[in-house]
Amino acid sequence: MSIVARPKPRNLGKLMVSHVTVAHGGGGKAMKDLIDDVFVSAFDNDLLAPLEDQARLDLAALARHGDRLAFTTDGYVVDPLFFPGGDIGKLAICGTVNDLAVGGAVPLHLSCAVVIEEGMAVETLRAIARSMAATARAAGVSIVTGDTKVVPRGACDKIFITTTGIGVIRPGLEIGADRARPGDIVLVNGRLGDHGAAILCARGDMALQSPVESDCADLSGLIAALLAAVPGVRFMRDATRGGIATVLNELAAASRVAIEIDETATPIDEGVRGFCEILGLDPLYLANEGKIVIAVAPEDAAVALAALRAHPLGRDACAIGKVTAGEAGRVSMNTLFGGRRIVDMLVGEQLPRIC
Amino acid sequence: MSIVARPKPRNLGKLMVSHVTVAHGGGGKAMKDLIDDVFVSAFDNDLLAPLEDQARLDLAALARHGDRLAFTTDGYVVDPLFFPGGDIGKLAICGTVNDLAVGGAVPLHLSCAVVIEEGMAVETLRAIARSMAATARAAGVSIVTGDTKVVPRGACDKIFITTTGIGVIRPGLEIGADRARPGDIVLVNGRLGDHGAAILCARGDMALQSPVESDCADLSGLIAALLAAVPGVRFMRDATRGGIATVLNELAAASRVAIEIDETATPIDEGVRGFCEILGLDPLYLANEGKIVIAVAPEDAAVALAALRAHPLGRDACAIGKVTAGEAGRVSMNTLFGGRRIVDMLVGEQLPRIC
Repeated sequence: MSIVARPKPRNLGKLMVSHVTVAHGGGGKAMKDLIDDVFVSAFDNDLLAPLEDQARLDLAALARHGDRLAFTTDGYVVDPLFFPGGDIGKLAICGTVNDLAVGGAVPLHLSCAVVIEEGMAVETLRAIARSMAATARAAGVSIVTGDTKVVPRGACDKIFITTTGIGVIRPGLEIGADRARPGDIVLVNGRLGDHGAAILCARGDMALQSPVESDCADLSGLIAALLAAVPGVRFMRDATRGGIATVLNELAAASRVAIEIDETATPIDEGVRGFCEILGLDPLYLANEGKIVIAVAPEDAAVALAALRAHPLGRDACAIGKVTAGEAGRVSMNTLFGGRRIVDMLVGEQLPRIC
Repeated sequence: MSIVARPKPRNLGKLMVSHVTVAHGGGGKAMKDLIDDVFVSAFDNDLLAPLEDQARLDLAALARHGDRLAFTTDGYVVDPLFFPGGDIGKLAICGTVNDLAVGGAVPLHLSCAVVIEEGMAVETLRAIARSMAATARAAGVSIVTGDTKVVPRGACDKIFITTTGIGVIRPGLEIGADRARPGDIVLVNGRLGDHGAAILCARGDMALQSPVESDCADLSGLIAALLAAVPGVRFMRDATRGGIATVLNELAAASRVAIEIDETATPIDEGVRGFCEILGLDPLYLANEGKIVIAVAPEDAAVALAALRAHPLGRDACAIGKVTAGEAGRVSMNTLFGGRRIVDMLVGEQLPRIC
């Protein structure tokens, strides 16, 4: 390795290599070309300032959306990078947009930091960047700043993406894990476990074929429709790693309530159910990337369900249970056979790199 | 692997393991314990809301600092994790705080997303989190939201950290890479190349011992002092990957000016200089983590220098050159021996994982 500058004709044009090298993470011309060619050209928007180390956003313009800034970050390490229903780029946008939206925020801007393994095909990187750009555009958010690191072969597996989002919450919305009250109704917007099942099948090491696609989706439109109909929603959370079991446990603990769900009311695709039976998995713990758990006051439940069902991403929405004054933090499920079982926080190992 | 919940007594207490397992990334109880024990306890602040997927920040409170939100992200993959003068945690805070400050923003809040390799010692993780917390506290910023992923052994090298920062820029400050004008003076706040040299030595594969420490530092206080003295600063940039050569090239290109620096005026530690001579490195391309390149109008140069030198992190500040009306984008150095050489954008390979 040499870090002595070798004079070379300028303006040689953009990337002329097929694979990422460590030079693309060096801070020099190769990195600038990679960023311009792959990311800046895909993310193209007025706020992106590739010449600066920071994006600048007018506070007055943000304040027109509401009174509180929501700020959230997530790293995406999913394996494989491309899977039925999505890819790491789509996931990295949807996941962070959803984390903003479930708190009641209008998602507005994202940052994107990537760690790339030396040797990655530039075409793969382009496909991921295009997927991020298209997903962001559809969600109405702009990717306004970023960072690129390249590590030597073997120091990371292909690519990790961290997106950080900012959005704005309008006055009056008060959504939180500590706000559920006995009597509240628990809703979901559709069938559970599709993402986890799709990723497991896509890895191929289960030797199972399944037609299940990931439910990876931007839920901000669905959530906006729900909040327009029911501004008093108590709680929303996208049920990603750990599935709805984890979300319900977090809600029950933070609100100091019990939650009872009904197995018969819990929507699970037949394919996913069969897949879980064969592998001994519990679909309540399978990751989703397009499903939210919602708690609303009982008098709001019918309006909330109607609003969800009127949206393409909520057609299969249903009530799965209710909040009770039982033991604080306890989540239980009334089973198909009339029994009841505890739905505990996930204790053992989970599936690594599911998102 | 099983994702079926195994009922287990609750409130068992916190982490009882010495090393991170994939279960710590699963979204369940192990992950919650790891986050509570290692990160939440270290980062402790009023805005941190571990029960929610997002932090919420009052827009009116932000607007008291200025009129524009600055937003920046960086991934940190430095190897080794601990080095003379710093560690990946300190670096992940200082680097992002500095990226905010060089644009004129008051750094306020950070997010922190980590990707951890299975098998990492929990004590190492704690040391990194403590370092992040102490550095953030000293810089006056709060870490308000985060994310934790664990990948199987071999899928990443120990730990990668992505921090994203928000700050606010007060009205009237206009700092940018396109604002340098012929006649402007180029300043730096001290000796160059210490971070790059320290990391190279710390890796040990050069079989060189050197007393050089990384200059890794939070520069927000120094920058605030400079802006108080000279609000009309044209440009600031921390000279990280690619060194000052890269920053000067970016400035010259964006402002469509030429820049001439003087080798005799460019401050480099004798140890670093010797180290570079032995290895055939050019210190202008070595990374810094506590040095900024500044451009000011000629009439402001004396006041700017005095303000920098009055601060502990600017004691060795000096003028290293000037902006000229020469060929747009050209950076050159008048050498010790009376010649002149082009200082081009870094073209070849750089040192991977320097930050």
